[in-house]
This record gives sequence, C-alpha cells and structure tokens, in this order.
Amino acid sequence: MATEGEKEQVKLLGVTLSPFVVRVCIALALKGIDYEFIQVNFMHPKSELLLKSNPVHKKVLVLIHYGKPVCESMIIVQYIEEAWENKEPNLMPKDPYDRAIARFWVAFVDDKLFPSMRAAFFGQGEQLQKEVEVTVTNFLLIEEALRTNDCFAGKPYFGGDEIGLIDIALGGLSAFITGVEKATDSVLIDAEKMPLLSAWLDRFCQLDVVKEAMPDPAEYISVRRAMMMSPPTSN
Amino acid sequence: MATEGEKEQVKLLGVTLSPFVVRVCIALALKGIDYEFIQVNFMHPKSELLLKSNPVHKKVLVLIHYGKPVCESMIIVQYIEEAWENKEPNLMPKDPYDRAIARFWVAFVDDKLFPSMRAAFFGQGEQLQKEVEVTVTNFLLIEEALRTNDCFAGKPYFGGDEIGLIDIALGGLSAFITGVEKATDSVLIDAEKMPLLSAWLDRFCQLDVVKEAMPDPAEYISVRRAMMMSPPTSN
Repeated sequence: MATEGEKEQVKLLGVTLSPFVVRVCIALALKGIDYEFIQVNFMHPKSELLLKSNPVHKKVLVLIHYGKPVCESMIIVQYIEEAWENKEPNLMPKDPYDRAIARFWVAFVDDKLFPSMRAAFFGQGEQLQKEVEVTVTNFLLIEEALRTNDCFAGKPYFGGDEIGLIDIALGGLSAFITGVEKATDSVLIDAEKMPLLSAWLDRFCQLDVVKEAMPDPAEYISVRRAMMMSPPTSN
Repeated sequence: MATEGEKEQVKLLGVTLSPFVVRVCIALALKGIDYEFIQVNFMHPKSELLLKSNPVHKKVLVLIHYGKPVCESMIIVQYIEEAWENKEPNLMPKDPYDRAIARFWVAFVDDKLFPSMRAAFFGQGEQLQKEVEVTVTNFLLIEEALRTNDCFAGKPYFGGDEIGLIDIALGGLSAFITGVEKATDSVLIDAEKMPLLSAWLDRFCQLDVVKEAMPDPAEYISVRRAMMMSPPTSN
C-alpha cells in the first residue's frame, strides 16, 4: 500500500513510554514504515483528535492511516502486517495452526500477564506481593511453552527465525518488565528458573529496532511516582 | 484442508449452553464442517482430555483438529476461517482496514460487553443494576457504530451481505442476552433506543444455522440457579 508521502499518511498518537506504543513502534520499524509520532501528554491524554479517533474506548494509542483510525496495539500490529503485507519481514506465520497459537499467546500476554504486571506496579504491600507472584506464575507458563510447544522449541524467536506477533507483544513490554522489577524490588524473570525466556529476552533486546524503540526502564519509576501523586485526568 | 474422515479429525470439547461454544458451532455450521461434539459437564468441567488440551487456562472450549488443540472461541473461529479458507462463506473481510475494525469490535464484545453481561447475570441488588446499566451503555455504543461506521452502515450484517466475525462474536451471545434479561428482569436491547441493533439481532436469529446452534434462553436460568447453589468444582 502506502509508499510515496507515507509519513504524511501514517500517524501514531500515543504516549512514548507506553509499552503498547513500543510494540507498534517496533512493528513499524521492522517493516520500514515512515510515520509521524504525535505525542500525547500522559497526564492529560484525552485530546480532541484522540476522542475523535477512538470514541469507544477514549484511550491513547491510535494509528491513523490515510485518515482512518485503528485502535489497540496488537490490532494495530496485525493491521500493519496486513496493510503492508508485501513488505518483509512477515510478522505472522502462514500456517493457520501457528497463527492460532500466536493469537493465543498474544491474548495470554494481554489478558493475564500485563494486568498482573500493572497491578504489581501500582500495588502496595500484600497486594503488590500477590500480583508479583501471579506475574511470576504467568512467566513460568511462557517458559513452559518455550520448552514444550513444537511451535517455539529450539527456535530463536517465538516467530521462528524472525520476530513475530508474540515477540512484539511480549518483548514490547521488556522495559516495563524491568520497571516493574525496580518498582516492586523483585525478580520477575529469574534466569535460573526461566533460562529459555531469559535468553529470548536478551536476544530480543539486542536487536537494533528494539533498542531504538525501547524507553529507559527508570522512566517508568518517575511515571509511577507522578501518577500515584496525581492520577491522570479522566477527560 | 480436511475433507475425508473429517468428523474423526475435528472434535469440539465444550459445554453446550456456553455462548462461546455457540459461536464455534455457528462457524463450523456455516463452513459445512462435520465434527464430533464432546460434551463437558459444566459442574465438573476439568476432564483429563481438557487439561491436556488447554493446560494454560484449564478452561472448556477446545477445538481439536488432527490432534492439535486450539483454544478460545474467537481464536477458534479465526482458525476455522483460515484452515478452511477455500470453503465459503468467508468469515473475515479481505480488506486490512475492515479486518482491523472486525477485530476491534470482537475485542469490545469480549472485553467490555460480555464481562458486564456476566456480572449482571450473577449479580445481586445494586451491583446487578449497575452492571445492567453498563451493559446497556455498551449496546448503545454498538448501535452508534451500526449507525455511523462506514464499514457497517446500511448493510444487513456486520460482515456486509454475509455473516462475519463480529456477527458470530455478538450474535453467538443472543440466547444469553435473553437469559440475562430474564434473570435480571431488565431490557438490554430496547428496540426503540437501538433500532439497528435490534433489527440486526432479529435477522441474525432467523438464520437456520443460528436457530440450530442456539440454546433455549430459559436453560440459562436453570444453570444460574444450579451454579449459585453449588459453584462448579475448580479441579
């Protein structure tokens, strides 16, 4: 699809530090798509353009392509794959079963892993400890899948030899994972208990496109402090 | 893919009354795929075959195709579309933007609408009333999308002239919607306030494949009573 004047036609609205924005930035960089990033203030995230672009959830992170909005990070990543399907690399496997497995683990990251990490990040006392434990259990399930699932075992990335949908969904959280570890003074990915996951994360974080997109984990600590002192406005 | 001996190679494990099972049954029926249904007792849902097939979530509803398990209803429906892509009808639009919109509304149904309906169904007193209101607000957002979104406006189904992903995701819940209305003594889809959604639901429910897959809404009331008296076992 888009090539000429691409930058004018691809806009990304989001908060730079958001792990969800990181995912989309990695996907755009992998595909070599030029775009304009429109920074949204995380303390006052509901601009008019945003509300117009995402009237249902009224949340940040919208990709606008030729004026049409696409919302939610992993829906955007799949859109990027399909709208620029002729651009390498392919972010989705071709085989229907492998695609279902990719979608399953992306849903696991979004519906189970991220909520527990977020709850730990903003938690206090016992609640924080409980959510750290839930998060570790979730990471152990991913380690187990890396060890036993034929789709992943023995391959450098979840996507096989190249980064795919799961790598982006999980790896996009890597700075946030470190941020949560710092904020909660805990180890979420223990290299001894999760050797495969730990090695995968190191491999993923050493890629140039990932290095460029990834924020400094320390910044999450500042965000946490600011949000706890004064929660973002709701309109 | 599968044709000869298909029934032996496609198995669906689930609880007949589950709205998620209904979705998959509609998709299989639309594609004309023969399969064996393996009924799971909803009061004791965690059989050995199930735990082996879905070790991560340990939940019912697994499609087993040539011995390989696929979990979660809308991931299964997308798998059905892709594994039998040459069988009409197509359950996904071809255009990348339309596909993103389909995924967005499927996520809305699963992440916002269904949880509020479920909470209303099992709720009591004020909590029940609150969740009914949230559910109505969610349905109003769908009505608004039917009225204003170019992808849907003026078409008989969300999928255009044929049933698509959103129709299955939302329409698969139709008996449950009626069940929740009966259980909570409320109107969730008011034909005056939601004329487009109401007309769509009538159209959807008159399709033969839908009639055959849809349980009697009254059965949900019995399930609710049984589950409230004695919650399902957790192992």
